[in-house]
Amino acid sequence: MSVSDEKAALDVSGIQKAVRWYPPKYDIRVEAVPIPQIIDPDDAIVKVKLAGLCGSDLHIYRGHEDVDADLTCGHELIGEVVALGPSFRPDATGRPELYSTLKVGDKVVSPFTVSCGECHFCRIGFTCRCIHSCLFGIPTLPGGQAQYARIPKAGGTLFNLSSLQSSSGSGEQPWDLSKLSDSSLLLLADILPTGVFAAMQALQHPKIAPILTGKPYPYGGFVPSSPVGQAQASTALQEGDKLLTIGIVGLGPVGVCATVSLLDILAGLGASQGLQYQVIAIDPIESRRTKMEAVYNAIDVSGKGSGRFAVASIEDGKKLASGWTNGAGCNAVLEVVGNNSALTLAYDIVRPFGIISSVGVHQEPPIPFTGRDVYNKNVSFDFGRCPVRAMFPIALEILLKRQDVFGGVGKEASLIDRIVSFDEAPQVYEDFDKGRCGKILFDPWR
Amino acid sequence: MSVSDEKAALDVSGIQKAVRWYPPKYDIRVEAVPIPQIIDPDDAIVKVKLAGLCGSDLHIYRGHEDVDADLTCGHELIGEVVALGPSFRPDATGRPELYSTLKVGDKVVSPFTVSCGECHFCRIGFTCRCIHSCLFGIPTLPGGQAQYARIPKAGGTLFNLSSLQSSSGSGEQPWDLSKLSDSSLLLLADILPTGVFAAMQALQHPKIAPILTGKPYPYGGFVPSSPVGQAQASTALQEGDKLLTIGIVGLGPVGVCATVSLLDILAGLGASQGLQYQVIAIDPIESRRTKMEAVYNAIDVSGKGSGRFAVASIEDGKKLASGWTNGAGCNAVLEVVGNNSALTLAYDIVRPFGIISSVGVHQEPPIPFTGRDVYNKNVSFDFGRCPVRAMFPIALEILLKRQDVFGGVGKEASLIDRIVSFDEAPQVYEDFDKGRCGKILFDPWR
Repeated sequence: MSVSDEKAALDVSGIQKAVRWYPPKYDIRVEAVPIPQIIDPDDAIVKVKLAGLCGSDLHIYRGHEDVDADLTCGHELIGEVVALGPSFRPDATGRPELYSTLKVGDKVVSPFTVSCGECHFCRIGFTCRCIHSCLFGIPTLPGGQAQYARIPKAGGTLFNLSSLQSSSGSGEQPWDLSKLSDSSLLLLADILPTGVFAAMQALQHPKIAPILTGKPYPYGGFVPSSPVGQAQASTALQEGDKLLTIGIVGLGPVGVCATVSLLDILAGLGASQGLQYQVIAIDPIESRRTKMEAVYNAIDVSGKGSGRFAVASIEDGKKLASGWTNGAGCNAVLEVVGNNSALTLAYDIVRPFGIISSVGVHQEPPIPFTGRDVYNKNVSFDFGRCPVRAMFPIALEILLKRQDVFGGVGKEASLIDRIVSFDEAPQVYEDFDKGRCGKILFDPWR
Repeated sequence: MSVSDEKAALDVSGIQKAVRWYPPKYDIRVEAVPIPQIIDPDDAIVKVKLAGLCGSDLHIYRGHEDVDADLTCGHELIGEVVALGPSFRPDATGRPELYSTLKVGDKVVSPFTVSCGECHFCRIGFTCRCIHSCLFGIPTLPGGQAQYARIPKAGGTLFNLSSLQSSSGSGEQPWDLSKLSDSSLLLLADILPTGVFAAMQALQHPKIAPILTGKPYPYGGFVPSSPVGQAQASTALQEGDKLLTIGIVGLGPVGVCATVSLLDILAGLGASQGLQYQVIAIDPIESRRTKMEAVYNAIDVSGKGSGRFAVASIEDGKKLASGWTNGAGCNAVLEVVGNNSALTLAYDIVRPFGIISSVGVHQEPPIPFTGRDVYNKNVSFDFGRCPVRAMFPIALEILLKRQDVFGGVGKEASLIDRIVSFDEAPQVYEDFDKGRCGKILFDPWR
């Protein structure tokens, strides 16, 4: 099919349905808007099969982002490529290999930001800070809650599920995606990679390395030291030191993804390295705690190993963080909320030399700590947005393994409550904002 | 010599000279006070040969620490063990091996905090947050600016230079400390390990790992991922990506130690892994910049390799951080000051996914960033006090290699300006506070 044929595959009317937001806040409308066109040689047009409603959509919904123009909502989509710009032609020159493999008809997931795959930030894996980075669902880049979406820098941005399915990795077995539903795969657009990122930021931190490697700080890291130096380390770890206690603050959909991913990685480390763990998942909202418990019960033993796990209210979580650690506190806390109450709770329950891995989308308020607070506890913080494109392979591995949790829609343990039509958008935005429902997906063609 | 004999070696008068501070501020007196005695079985009494005056002594001097009782100053000392508590007797039971090797007559350096060497925090290397941690030079624990000092938990706290000198490491060559002067060794009590720690926190961080390992984030870390996952990483590093740009904010004595240590480690990584580096050392005070330049010129090629180095004012530093990186900013910034101007400058010059390694002693003011600042730049922070006892072997390796800088007193490139008697204490505290001198050591017997 030539590029002109591909364009012909788009709806001949030139008009599509989309979920749109109007300033200043809470104003969601379902409107007919033009189908997007290729405007840059690197663009792809994707026919959207499912689009997610995400907690961070609520920042704009509530008017917290100072956006003053209307926009097409959403930054999570799975779909099919229906048109490609000239950069994807076989005879295109000067484009990286990424642009030669994407074809019309390929099944793709888009991360919530554009990434070129070519700049230094993309090459080293910090894809969400690509020099061409742009968030979907803002006035200048229409989002995924539409029947079609334009994807800039599509060769770098999109995950090509079709080529993954047929590839054979590094000579190992190919990825078998056949059992994954679209609603499950859509989790790769944002919330599962973000959850994995929250866990990985903590587990990769050099302050955790002594527990994982058995070498006292600072000898577990990347920077070499002479054998003489290492032999002069004052101390040696004992068996009981290989215990990791990790808190999670916030059990919305991303928090549940973070918890499941963390447990899966910890179970693997327990099996391979004899690590013991304790995980304390905290949320003030009872319905979220109930969901988290259902999810935990659905995970089979390969995904949780033999560690200790509790779902707790804030007060109970504080008690456990102290009681399970002889008063020391958690080695790391995953902060998956994005406000100062959550950051303060994370600080309260983290131990000296602990790590706060914060993936919540924080807003204008100042960070709620004094210099003395953070100095006196030797706290490490990792803030910011998940580089979804870079986390994708690890997230996909977890998605494949954890179909006990990520596989269904509407099941008690599923992260996805319902799949609805765009017509329900104003209502489900309101319900989601008020905490009356869990994660919602839109089917643009329903 | 028996323990009772050892005590007899103390001055028979029972009285010693010490530098003492009185509240509320700026009140330094040289007084006769009792020689400390063993009061706990784990104590040692050390006859002080040299004691340092440190930038963080100024926090109490200036009345910033809300201390309301007089105290014996100082937290940097080198000396000789003259008495040991019963835990060090050959027939003592229940004490770890550390307590069996320290002898009367041993030459020792004390870190600025007590650490037991036995608790979980000590075992994994976070010695400055030992459950028995206590800072020297506070009302309840007299400091090192005295003729004698009592060292609690001395088996864990003290670095035993005598046993190092005679040990042979891990079967490699023994440490040859014979060429190191006491004034050079005293740097191990605080400022050199703190400088090394500032550098190591940055270089060990997983966000630096892609540059050091050549593997895109998140595959360079401790947490294993399947080969299939790694093969699906979207991107590969290019040769030009192995370039690390690091800023240092603050060129006081600790900042100079951080810079020298950083350059030494980077030169090693350049030789072994082909890493390129750019280092920008920033201070607003011209005399400090001049000292830093003299130090840099004194370092031989083994300690700086072939990277690019500049000493800069704040404005010039900002220009270089942008100009040397195509506007991206520094991969990491070492913040060695301890106030909000320094933290803000560090934020301004760090790139997205950059690290701020903050070893400055921060006070009451709130951290000067909003949640949006840190989220939008994916900033990582490591705050807090250096675990000197754990960093000691690495610091000693650098001290041995970098005698071109750390070897002399009063030389243009030396970190130590002068060695003075206690009688000059009121004057040198004032001079140091006003920035009229560099690092000062006290000889208590002069």
